[in-house]
Amino acid sequence: MPRPVWVLGAASNRFGKMAETGREAAARVSLEAIRRAGLEPKEIGYTFVSNAFGLAERQAHVGPLINTALGIPEVPSCTIESACSSSSAALHEAYVHVAGGFHDAALVVGVEKLSHLDTLTATSYFAIGADYPFESHNGATFPGLYATIANAHMHRYGTTSDQLGAVAVKNHANGALNPHAHFQKPISMETYRSSPVIASPLRLYDCCPFSDGAAALVVVAAEKYPNPVTEPVVIRASARAGSIADMHDRPELTGLPASQRAGAEAFRQARLVPAQVDFLEVHDCFTIAELVALEDLGFFPRGAAGPATAEGVTARDGKLPVNPSGGLKAKGHPVSATGASQVVEVFEQFNGLAGRRQVPKAEVALAHNVGATGSSASVHLFSRR
Amino acid sequence: MPRPVWVLGAASNRFGKMAETGREAAARVSLEAIRRAGLEPKEIGYTFVSNAFGLAERQAHVGPLINTALGIPEVPSCTIESACSSSSAALHEAYVHVAGGFHDAALVVGVEKLSHLDTLTATSYFAIGADYPFESHNGATFPGLYATIANAHMHRYGTTSDQLGAVAVKNHANGALNPHAHFQKPISMETYRSSPVIASPLRLYDCCPFSDGAAALVVVAAEKYPNPVTEPVVIRASARAGSIADMHDRPELTGLPASQRAGAEAFRQARLVPAQVDFLEVHDCFTIAELVALEDLGFFPRGAAGPATAEGVTARDGKLPVNPSGGLKAKGHPVSATGASQVVEVFEQFNGLAGRRQVPKAEVALAHNVGATGSSASVHLFSRR
Repeated sequence: MPRPVWVLGAASNRFGKMAETGREAAARVSLEAIRRAGLEPKEIGYTFVSNAFGLAERQAHVGPLINTALGIPEVPSCTIESACSSSSAALHEAYVHVAGGFHDAALVVGVEKLSHLDTLTATSYFAIGADYPFESHNGATFPGLYATIANAHMHRYGTTSDQLGAVAVKNHANGALNPHAHFQKPISMETYRSSPVIASPLRLYDCCPFSDGAAALVVVAAEKYPNPVTEPVVIRASARAGSIADMHDRPELTGLPASQRAGAEAFRQARLVPAQVDFLEVHDCFTIAELVALEDLGFFPRGAAGPATAEGVTARDGKLPVNPSGGLKAKGHPVSATGASQVVEVFEQFNGLAGRRQVPKAEVALAHNVGATGSSASVHLFSRR
Repeated sequence: MPRPVWVLGAASNRFGKMAETGREAAARVSLEAIRRAGLEPKEIGYTFVSNAFGLAERQAHVGPLINTALGIPEVPSCTIESACSSSSAALHEAYVHVAGGFHDAALVVGVEKLSHLDTLTATSYFAIGADYPFESHNGATFPGLYATIANAHMHRYGTTSDQLGAVAVKNHANGALNPHAHFQKPISMETYRSSPVIASPLRLYDCCPFSDGAAALVVVAAEKYPNPVTEPVVIRASARAGSIADMHDRPELTGLPASQRAGAEAFRQARLVPAQVDFLEVHDCFTIAELVALEDLGFFPRGAAGPATAEGVTARDGKLPVNPSGGLKAKGHPVSATGASQVVEVFEQFNGLAGRRQVPKAEVALAHNVGATGSSASVHLFSRR
């Protein structure tokens, strides 16, 4: 039986543009997460870094640099990449190491810095997370690929542009209350409707931004930390799955099979059902992705997530708050920090640290992180003790 | 207690120049390793890929592509990077997953393709494994860094150029018998002595080549495979460690602290001592690295590895065969395939598949894989059942 595992500390910087280097930001948020957990760096047994596009800073092998900065150079490390799901994959490794009894405490830190690149170069970095020769090389970069999903979903289920807009308006409203967020201003539906089309039907405000950012988690064996100084985030399930890499080879475009598999596996591990979840952080790289995630994870029947969002069900004060952090859409999407930052939000909500974006009930949460167009997905379920 | 774990199948292509893409080569060797193990792809529960320089092929997130090619797209995957120790770090993750009971079988596949780049670009890729702004950016790329180690070792212990040459001559002799090797021709000491100086005291033949290549391992829970079709490689220890990243910050240059730590931890886990090891695959990215490794791992006192090598102790038919595969020096060094390929050699030696390079006794083996100048190191100990 796996040992019970907690996230005992978590920290994030403000997403957006970082003046410091990735390694500096990673060390800084790591130290903050370790301090929040009430640990000393020397208690860390393994460091899992995510930094998919480290080459953009001409730096690979960043674990030893971070550990050296933390004063624990002897600690082993490795870098975990799974495109936009890199740091949830890193959390999975940390969970396995700690649950399996190999270490009592592990550090997960995701970091990305791309803002010093021009947009075209940054886009080309992102694009290599898809199947480059078959998709990106032929012009099918992520806005186009997710637009295809949106078109299929609209055609099949009648999802509307205004329902996509409702996701954007909601997530910007949440981001406006999050000091970690890249975009901290609300938008109106009028702003959404008048924003330019990027890849039909997706408008500018359907797309998450390129962000710099860093987020860190301290993952521990519960039995070794009997007197936690924080409200621990209990990892009830840590599940990952894959799917056919190329969208053109998938039998169905209105859902992501990897999310469905990882979600089902997570609920099985946790012995929970969707109705027991108080709030979610889901992978809304584009607004359509949030709707598809809610349906893939069993929170709404097919085609029902759009209308529910328009009705306010997923608002911060709704029945099922989704992306109270602002999500990738407004909090931002520093690729390799995104998965860890979702868990930072869970930690802050569980610990009453979420300020004005605090959700009414924060006892069971789900985090959902996707790589590329869903060729990888991670689903974690968390509860308070 | 961790479950007993075996490497049940292993395969490599010929290192050197690959005509096919990295993903194709990775899928091919994976399928061969799975077949050798007597498994079906669908038995694989998790795929750990190493492909540190996938950006050189404009492709990240290669796990789903490999799994899709293997007909198991639903299987989760991630990519593990630890510079030149990437695929031994991936093996460590697979070991933890299987030993901890999370999966019964996992695939490890390392692949690298850089031969389509010009030498300067390839060198700059390698260089980002070191501390780029402090080392590589100032011209301290790996030949210079390891030359510094060689100079320190010569100064302190009287190691000679001819002793370095003896490593090269031995490893080329071994590589000449290895159909997987990049260089399959012996060299004489005269050839070594007359080769140009690259970074004093290191000559051309002190340096491993840039190679393309792929190597795969099938890692299983022993209890789930009671009737193996191969001679299983029992993983007796899987240990990793880090050290201060920058060479200029280390108190001592004649040894790698990460190798010392990982080695000591591996012998502790396995309850073995160096005298019980029949042969080793060590990380000879430069000839000096082999000598330093043998001393760091406790096989020779400081300064004794050079003379012992010159006397033939580490030859294929010597008392302690070292790098019977030809090592990085002659088998080649496709960065992310190297660690896995060391275990391919152990598998082939244990199974009597090593042909003319078969060592006299192959029951206990050690594999040692280093990232950068030793800011990361992995040591695995293996035995027959």
